[in-house]
Amino acid sequence: MDSCQGQSTGQLVPSGPFSPAERDAVYRAIFTRRDVRSQFSPRPVPDDVLARILTAGHHAPSVGFMQPWSFLVLRSQDIRRKVQALFETANAEAASMFPPEKQALYRSLKLEGILDAPVNLCITCDPDRAGPVVLGRTHDAAMDRYSTVCAVQNIWLAARAEGVGVGWVSIVDPTRLREVLGMPERVVLVAYLCLGYVDEAYARPELEVKGWRRRLPAEDVLRFDGWDERGFDDPLLAAMQAAMGDAGERMAGG
Amino acid sequence: MDSCQGQSTGQLVPSGPFSPAERDAVYRAIFTRRDVRSQFSPRPVPDDVLARILTAGHHAPSVGFMQPWSFLVLRSQDIRRKVQALFETANAEAASMFPPEKQALYRSLKLEGILDAPVNLCITCDPDRAGPVVLGRTHDAAMDRYSTVCAVQNIWLAARAEGVGVGWVSIVDPTRLREVLGMPERVVLVAYLCLGYVDEAYARPELEVKGWRRRLPAEDVLRFDGWDERGFDDPLLAAMQAAMGDAGERMAGG
Repeated sequence: MDSCQGQSTGQLVPSGPFSPAERDAVYRAIFTRRDVRSQFSPRPVPDDVLARILTAGHHAPSVGFMQPWSFLVLRSQDIRRKVQALFETANAEAASMFPPEKQALYRSLKLEGILDAPVNLCITCDPDRAGPVVLGRTHDAAMDRYSTVCAVQNIWLAARAEGVGVGWVSIVDPTRLREVLGMPERVVLVAYLCLGYVDEAYARPELEVKGWRRRLPAEDVLRFDGWDERGFDDPLLAAMQAAMGDAGERMAGG
Repeated sequence: MDSCQGQSTGQLVPSGPFSPAERDAVYRAIFTRRDVRSQFSPRPVPDDVLARILTAGHHAPSVGFMQPWSFLVLRSQDIRRKVQALFETANAEAASMFPPEKQALYRSLKLEGILDAPVNLCITCDPDRAGPVVLGRTHDAAMDRYSTVCAVQNIWLAARAEGVGVGWVSIVDPTRLREVLGMPERVVLVAYLCLGYVDEAYARPELEVKGWRRRLPAEDVLRFDGWDERGFDDPLLAAMQAAMGDAGERMAGG
């Protein structure tokens, strides 16, 4: 790192648009990224590949440049078996919370690949990483966790470019998972991820494919100059509908 | 969208690694993305470009496919002037919270481009978007906000590829900002972003360039099979140090 912190440190560099091919690659990662549960290959992810993916996470934006994340690389079968058991308990609790007509579908879904994937990552947020007062966290205490989630999304997209699938497992009791991993009280567990090569993935999100829920149309997520203005006549709405059509075509193309 | 939901919906598609050029483009977006405050051009972001960026946000992963986000597109000068005033108040409060020796540096930093950037985005999370029980949110109530942050990071990276800079303004009183934007009580304000074209950006994060805080070395963010195992001899640590060196060279190259 030190070799990069010489004279060029304070310089501004060109920051224009990417070439069309580069831009398409970024959108390809975004549109073909999936939450993977069932398609993991057992073949190991080499250290240099995993290192690039983790470095992408470490270059996420962070409030006050605090970099509050830690990346716990979990390869141990013993640890992962314990996490898998926590998932089973929590998932049985979860299933019983849904309305009766959704329970059969819920129980039919495979929602984790903890032991199928060759490596798991637990991503945490240490609120004390940069002292008690953090630039940008003074008026929203959640900003450090949000920075950590930006690292998760960088990891997800970098992994997609490497051919590595990622699945986020959130159906575990966080207190028990903290115990299994020996985490201190102050550290917040943000994400538990399963990583492994995937040769094939669903063209669309698995929960859409399996009829759990549909993609919302653009008009349901856009508002203009305030909450109440839906802007049904705004040209940006039509432009987003067209962009979503293009995204759909890219997804079908893999 | 409907035209894309035919026979191919349930199909698996190839999901292998990108070509080296495509992969490099994804990493270029990740490593050259900056939190922009001072370099915004006033020229408008065309609707088709903004639509692609928003569509990238809408294709973020979301817990239970709930898509809890709303994107409030803020062009009104009047609204943005009110938000800028909220920032000024909060920023004065924030400055006084730092230790005396950091206050002068804090006050010298420009931390927002609310009126400089031609468009602002407020990104919110509606916890009721998919009913009271959400697949994957049963054991961590924050998962819907985390999904919303994944949308923010997709927007940030897509914007980078388009030559559009993004700055996240978190130094505002969220209650007052909610009032300015007419947001209902239940909806959570997650991110307030300034967007505009940038011709130049800092080669490294602005807070690093200005001496606020340094990039943490790999050994400070990696742990192995549990919190207490730092793995100083693990080959993955050396691989991540090498990957961080490569990332530094990419940043200097713009």
